[in-house]
Amino acid sequence: MMPTDESRMSQPRYAGVPTFMRTPYQTDLTDLDIALIGIPYDGAVTNRAGARHGPRDIRDKSSMMRAIHHVTKVNPYALCNIADIGDATFEALFDHDAVVRDIESFFARVHKAGVVPLSAGGDHSVSYPILKAIAKDEPVGLIHIDAHTDTWDEFQGSKFMHGTPFRRAHEDGLIDASRTIQIGIRGAQNTSEGWDYSLAQGMRVVFMEEFTQMGVDAVIQEARRIVGDGPAYLTFDVDGLDPVYAPGTGTPEIGGITTIEAQALLRGLRHLNLIGADVVEVAPPFDPSGNTSLVGATLMYEMLCLLAEVIADKKAMK
Amino acid sequence: MMPTDESRMSQPRYAGVPTFMRTPYQTDLTDLDIALIGIPYDGAVTNRAGARHGPRDIRDKSSMMRAIHHVTKVNPYALCNIADIGDATFEALFDHDAVVRDIESFFARVHKAGVVPLSAGGDHSVSYPILKAIAKDEPVGLIHIDAHTDTWDEFQGSKFMHGTPFRRAHEDGLIDASRTIQIGIRGAQNTSEGWDYSLAQGMRVVFMEEFTQMGVDAVIQEARRIVGDGPAYLTFDVDGLDPVYAPGTGTPEIGGITTIEAQALLRGLRHLNLIGADVVEVAPPFDPSGNTSLVGATLMYEMLCLLAEVIADKKAMK
Amino acid sequence: MMPTDESRMSQPRYAGVPTFMRTPYQTDLTDLDIALIGIPYDGAVTNRAGARHGPRDIRDKSSMMRAIHHVTKVNPYALCNIADIGDATFEALFDHDAVVRDIESFFARVHKAGVVPLSAGGDHSVSYPILKAIAKDEPVGLIHIDAHTDTWDEFQGSKFMHGTPFRRAHEDGLIDASRTIQIGIRGAQNTSEGWDYSLAQGMRVVFMEEFTQMGVDAVIQEARRIVGDGPAYLTFDVDGLDPVYAPGTGTPEIGGITTIEAQALLRGLRHLNLIGADVVEVAPPFDPSGNTSLVGATLMYEMLCLLAEVIADKKAMK
Amino acid sequence: MMPTDESRMSQPRYAGVPTFMRTPYQTDLTDLDIALIGIPYDGAVTNRAGARHGPRDIRDKSSMMRAIHHVTKVNPYALCNIADIGDATFEALFDHDAVVRDIESFFARVHKAGVVPLSAGGDHSVSYPILKAIAKDEPVGLIHIDAHTDTWDEFQGSKFMHGTPFRRAHEDGLIDASRTIQIGIRGAQNTSEGWDYSLAQGMRVVFMEEFTQMGVDAVIQEARRIVGDGPAYLTFDVDGLDPVYAPGTGTPEIGGITTIEAQALLRGLRHLNLIGADVVEVAPPFDPSGNTSLVGATLMYEMLCLLAEVIADKKAMK
Amino acid sequence: MMPTDESRMSQPRYAGVPTFMRTPYQTDLTDLDIALIGIPYDGAVTNRAGARHGPRDIRDKSSMMRAIHHVTKVNPYALCNIADIGDATFEALFDHDAVVRDIESFFARVHKAGVVPLSAGGDHSVSYPILKAIAKDEPVGLIHIDAHTDTWDEFQGSKFMHGTPFRRAHEDGLIDASRTIQIGIRGAQNTSEGWDYSLAQGMRVVFMEEFTQMGVDAVIQEARRIVGDGPAYLTFDVDGLDPVYAPGTGTPEIGGITTIEAQALLRGLRHLNLIGADVVEVAPPFDPSGNTSLVGATLMYEMLCLLAEVIADKKAMK
Amino acid sequence: MMPTDESRMSQPRYAGVPTFMRTPYQTDLTDLDIALIGIPYDGAVTNRAGARHGPRDIRDKSSMMRAIHHVTKVNPYALCNIADIGDATFEALFDHDAVVRDIESFFARVHKAGVVPLSAGGDHSVSYPILKAIAKDEPVGLIHIDAHTDTWDEFQGSKFMHGTPFRRAHEDGLIDASRTIQIGIRGAQNTSEGWDYSLAQGMRVVFMEEFTQMGVDAVIQEARRIVGDGPAYLTFDVDGLDPVYAPGTGTPEIGGITTIEAQALLRGLRHLNLIGADVVEVAPPFDPSGNTSLVGATLMYEMLCLLAEVIADKKAMK
Repeated sequence: MMPTDESRMSQPRYAGVPTFMRTPYQTDLTDLDIALIGIPYDGAVTNRAGARHGPRDIRDKSSMMRAIHHVTKVNPYALCNIADIGDATFEALFDHDAVVRDIESFFARVHKAGVVPLSAGGDHSVSYPILKAIAKDEPVGLIHIDAHTDTWDEFQGSKFMHGTPFRRAHEDGLIDASRTIQIGIRGAQNTSEGWDYSLAQGMRVVFMEEFTQMGVDAVIQEARRIVGDGPAYLTFDVDGLDPVYAPGTGTPEIGGITTIEAQALLRGLRHLNLIGADVVEVAPPFDPSGNTSLVGATLMYEMLCLLAEVIADKKAMK
Repeated sequence: MMPTDESRMSQPRYAGVPTFMRTPYQTDLTDLDIALIGIPYDGAVTNRAGARHGPRDIRDKSSMMRAIHHVTKVNPYALCNIADIGDATFEALFDHDAVVRDIESFFARVHKAGVVPLSAGGDHSVSYPILKAIAKDEPVGLIHIDAHTDTWDEFQGSKFMHGTPFRRAHEDGLIDASRTIQIGIRGAQNTSEGWDYSLAQGMRVVFMEEFTQMGVDAVIQEARRIVGDGPAYLTFDVDGLDPVYAPGTGTPEIGGITTIEAQALLRGLRHLNLIGADVVEVAPPFDPSGNTSLVGATLMYEMLCLLAEVIADKKAMK
Repeated sequence: MMPTDESRMSQPRYAGVPTFMRTPYQTDLTDLDIALIGIPYDGAVTNRAGARHGPRDIRDKSSMMRAIHHVTKVNPYALCNIADIGDATFEALFDHDAVVRDIESFFARVHKAGVVPLSAGGDHSVSYPILKAIAKDEPVGLIHIDAHTDTWDEFQGSKFMHGTPFRRAHEDGLIDASRTIQIGIRGAQNTSEGWDYSLAQGMRVVFMEEFTQMGVDAVIQEARRIVGDGPAYLTFDVDGLDPVYAPGTGTPEIGGITTIEAQALLRGLRHLNLIGADVVEVAPPFDPSGNTSLVGATLMYEMLCLLAEVIADKKAMK
Repeated sequence: MMPTDESRMSQPRYAGVPTFMRTPYQTDLTDLDIALIGIPYDGAVTNRAGARHGPRDIRDKSSMMRAIHHVTKVNPYALCNIADIGDATFEALFDHDAVVRDIESFFARVHKAGVVPLSAGGDHSVSYPILKAIAKDEPVGLIHIDAHTDTWDEFQGSKFMHGTPFRRAHEDGLIDASRTIQIGIRGAQNTSEGWDYSLAQGMRVVFMEEFTQMGVDAVIQEARRIVGDGPAYLTFDVDGLDPVYAPGTGTPEIGGITTIEAQALLRGLRHLNLIGADVVEVAPPFDPSGNTSLVGATLMYEMLCLLAEVIADKKAMK
Repeated sequence: MMPTDESRMSQPRYAGVPTFMRTPYQTDLTDLDIALIGIPYDGAVTNRAGARHGPRDIRDKSSMMRAIHHVTKVNPYALCNIADIGDATFEALFDHDAVVRDIESFFARVHKAGVVPLSAGGDHSVSYPILKAIAKDEPVGLIHIDAHTDTWDEFQGSKFMHGTPFRRAHEDGLIDASRTIQIGIRGAQNTSEGWDYSLAQGMRVVFMEEFTQMGVDAVIQEARRIVGDGPAYLTFDVDGLDPVYAPGTGTPEIGGITTIEAQALLRGLRHLNLIGADVVEVAPPFDPSGNTSLVGATLMYEMLCLLAEVIADKKAMK
Repeated sequence: MMPTDESRMSQPRYAGVPTFMRTPYQTDLTDLDIALIGIPYDGAVTNRAGARHGPRDIRDKSSMMRAIHHVTKVNPYALCNIADIGDATFEALFDHDAVVRDIESFFARVHKAGVVPLSAGGDHSVSYPILKAIAKDEPVGLIHIDAHTDTWDEFQGSKFMHGTPFRRAHEDGLIDASRTIQIGIRGAQNTSEGWDYSLAQGMRVVFMEEFTQMGVDAVIQEARRIVGDGPAYLTFDVDGLDPVYAPGTGTPEIGGITTIEAQALLRGLRHLNLIGADVVEVAPPFDPSGNTSLVGATLMYEMLCLLAEVIADKKAMK
């Protein structure tokens, strides 16, 4: 089996059917280490829709990604078997409960096969069913980069929207609040409920101003301290970035993280015990230059290097 | 009371808080003849969302509208009291049944006050609750311009999506199939179910090719013949137009109606007994030049002239 | 002297400093037959500004123009000396009276040199000072394509804005109402004043609906009949076109002329005694695809062929 | 084998890895009737590049296509085995001779397998190597829709650029001039060389003005008469359309064919002996609304129906 | 009276007629503390127009604003009565002197009612008539963030253009040069006249390079030191920001302030005696992603918090 | 001779035929010190084309540039004779070897006339023929700002593409590796070949992470140390910048240099012995806001100040 498709890499970047990172498309999970997955769902947003188009556009822009990381020299394709296994599928798109079940079921199959998922949303509500599938055995740590804590209770009577996934995940015992860090939080709110919930549960909330004062190296140390050695999930909402880097998103908040900081932050997470990761809230209809999808693709590549190293670590330990 | 706000009309078109056609904003329905209403909902689309932003952008572009129609010389503001009464409101956006109830309830209040509604969607699912509110006493005729018959049964298990409103309306006895005409229908389908349903119920379906062959004058005569003198509702999905005129829509189909034809068609419906009208599926995120919203606003103005004349007719008959 | 710059024509269309039609840039008027001129002024618009950027963008797109007309086989560069003489210059941009004087003065120099001007606006107010410069000896005929008659009296207290140039020109005896035809008029108005003025003075107003009914060939005959053999000016406001062809304009009105009709119309004006022409109201900031400027450039090329033939006619008669 | 992938068709249109028309992606040609192929090459344009991105964007927009044609009721997937076989591959992108060889070689494999190619360009130069692969046995007829005859000799010293493919094809005996029709030709030229070549060889050239005068039905009859019963190739350059329908192209010419006319024209070609077809010159970077790619995808679908019927005809005759 | 409209805040952000921050629209100034005002005027720009559309687009984007500031925890709606009172109105748009009088008169009414104005431009010329209205009793301090000092004398013979307001204000005794600080100044000039004027009058000019070297905290201290305790006006030209944050502006200069710095700077001005504030030069036609208007709206929200606290301070002192 | 065209500078920035910096257009090199040159060629890119349109759009945006540098107070027009001499011309655009010869030949004429070239690309391949023309006597130092080292060997069999110019230049003895510094390098690669080549030859490679850690002042010192006093060439690929500053480029890599850093870096190179400079890879079709061209124009202005000072230094020494 050939995890990197060399013949396709030699073609120009704009050629061919676009899979994530120009990896092979395959639905068979056998011998796979990491599955790249799209979740084209944005039915849970409160403001602008569009993240349903995220997976396709990230796939398109991810053709610009290559193999060897220029800082760490990690080549994930040399460490792991990696493929694009397509998008989560839906049977009842207009019924949020069914959507949660469908996503959970899709990821449960991946998890059961021993494959680590790296996903592109979709809105942030999708992280909840992912966690239901892969964190059901014990609460996991969470590294959560975002402008919003996403620990609100409901909006317009709905418990399942893109501002609530980590409250639901916490209530379900899927994440360990004491091993949870939320980074980049900012923006006015009509009530402080979400902020209060995170803090009351013992999550570490790094508001944007603290981020700026600490600097990214200290934030990395804090994240490593909070999450520790146990299994952890990594989730990156692109609205954690300043909207100049990611205008294509549903609820932008000015004054956010730069991509240099985001890349440094992710590179600072090497060898943490990550069991999966996602990039969410890339909404191409609001992204005239295409930069948001390019950023999303590059962040996925950074995460891919992290996940590949962890899997290689584990293989080496056997 | 002053139906045309002359002082605002004298200001430049880009000035001021944008209401529909620069009419006064008021929530009080007393003495009002026609209510201009936005329905910012697109949770029922099958493809691209964005029509939730339609009402605001149509309001913005509608500032370019003025008073006297250059063909008919009708000045609706001289005939009727007209106001922007704001948008339908929602209590449970993520629950389609509740959305249907909320829209129905909003329009029931308007209908009860004896006010004729002229609405801007939103996706086409919104026409169903409007009809529930204003056509509940007897089935009404329907003039329906669209690329799609919107008489399909369901998608992804949902009975209420933007391809089904007129099947639901027919099942509920809100529209009279024999007094229904669907104009501009085109585009491939995976099954012929929707087309078959319309035809089987006795609706008059003018496919695009027939439209081209007949010419707009003959289509007008056919529409007048089908609808007759009884009460009728007028609904215009902008995807009935060719997408060069209305690129900002969720499910564009090339090869459609021109705006000259659309304007001629609407002007051909004078003095029909219209009880309401809507323009739907304007999706600004896919409308880089803003022309779709301008078209939507101008079609609303054409409809406003039609409705104002009908109301004046009725007032004159009293 | 080399009217067609062959070496530049052989370079790719995107190369070089963009002059109109890739003609030589020269400020010396000696031996010149036709001057291509930009008028980067839009201080007289009532709605959206942007036509100040028209000349530059039309120059850029005009590189796509070539020499031999595919219908008439006219090659204007073989008939006449043609150059880009740059833009009208201003000494007091914020003072409309001074602007009128500056434009008039620029064109008076061209006219005095016996050079025929073909101009790119700018908003439509610029046609008035052009006429002051080149029609001061006797009233000329006018072929005017536009959505608006531009014979209103004032807006916000100003007599000189882009809706008034032909009323001012008529009051000043620069145009002959009985030899004036206005084509493509449409769009609602708050009062009928402008329409009434044109009709009262005896101008021939072809509203859009009449245009559609007559067809372009009959409109050509009507224009030729009205204008006759005397000197005439040709002015084309791109909002006469449907906004799908020319979205980049300040006051778009849906339901307008197609480019096929516009080209046919212009080609129908061969050998009329045209003393100048302009294309106005191209506003690039509202033209995301660049088509409006391409249309503007192509209409200028059509006009250039007309003017070159007339000059050749006159030369032949000597 | 499953020619229509029903499970994928049931997912929303924006979901999944985008193949042409949501057909299966497969590189095995066994039992295949029609291959959908991308040719991401635009190194031969004279003006704006961008058609290299055509295949990907057409794939993306082609998800909006469905199965049953609303006019002909043809369902190509019920008649034939159809798959996306990916893009032509290149070994030396910067060497036009090598590019021609690589494309020819790719299509020779398809042709040898008895599979009919339906391609998406790329610039128009790609039609020449396609014809080298599939028309090498005898000259074929050609139905060519375009603003340009593409029978020029060279540009900047190159014989192989996007204005020359049909001159080269004719010189090589790949097309039969007497069975060639070129439709929609227009736009000024610096010399009449290309027009002259086509006419001198006996090709039928329908300039745009003749197209307008004849009407589309007469053009269809003319095309059928010219091409006759022999094998023929169909090539559609989107710049044959008016640029409002297809702004995303390298050398737009205003005043072109409408999509309604184009669809009618293609539907008029049923049961001609077509051996392949292509849509070329879709350049997404100049297509802000995405309509050009949607048009390209829809024209491909129309062509797919034509090709499927021809194959079904031939199967039936066996 | 209800300063925060809770029922509107519960609706989705894209719903309803857009007022600034979703505050109530009212023209009655009674009991109002802060008036949100639009000034849709850009007739005084030297380069690109478009700021006339600023107020509408800022209103639209300001729906994303909420109540409680995430750093200061200030909720301006709990401290003050706040409303959108619409746009300044004009009687003679094409006459700059009249425009100055109209704006002054509009703000004089607000000032007389004891209401603090927070405005959205419009080009920067509008700050001069605002100061004429609210600073006529004594010269006020000025905190001015901008790429340009706006203390030039004239352009094209006009004293009133968007590069002169603070020279005019200083000449009229409306601002105190010794209590004036200009922050973010940069960009080449044809003469040093404006820079020289500011320095000669004793204004504190923080060029961009000094800003970078000092850091935002030191700039805050400098601003507080300069302005002191007296009444002061705050004006923010978005071209002070780097154009990646605010591309939608008339005269962008690269190398500017970040939004994080701008937010920090504004938050550093708490409890200064601010008597009004404005955000100017947001020009939506040049803002494809909409970020400039989002930035403008968010800066207005930051200013609203500052003004509300000052008013609360003053109320508390009574 | 008049190096600064005062009358043109007094016109609004959007007026007139756009030359670089509004300098005079002239092809005569006599008495010229610095030539501003466009190279509209992008036939050597590996990903997205579009830089062929760079020179025109940079010219257009460069009208916003003025004379006196706000930090250094240098006025290049007071020091040197500066003109726009147009674009390099091509005889065989589709033959890369011929393109190299044509560009070399164009610059050889400039160099022979003793004129210093400041160029706008085009893709980065153009720096190689420039160096062939002006560095043929001895290897020069190189200050190279870019995301990529551009020292790869070949792509798709081609030695001359935009990733190879400095390998070719080094092989030809045009640049001195020990006096070469490459700044801003980043982004994954499929092999480390280019990085390895640069390092193996002794070039100083400042990867982006080192840049961030060192800070711009230290990078300036390093660049000055490496390049020393000998003749040196300065080349700036805009993809060295973060793509938020320069989205309009062919191969963007997130996480790059800011414009503030880039301006500081260039200002830090005063009085180095620069013999020419270029800005490359500005691709307007991917630059919806126009900021990339504005950045390109402003960087050219910064370089112009550097070159003018060096020439003034040399004149002073004579």
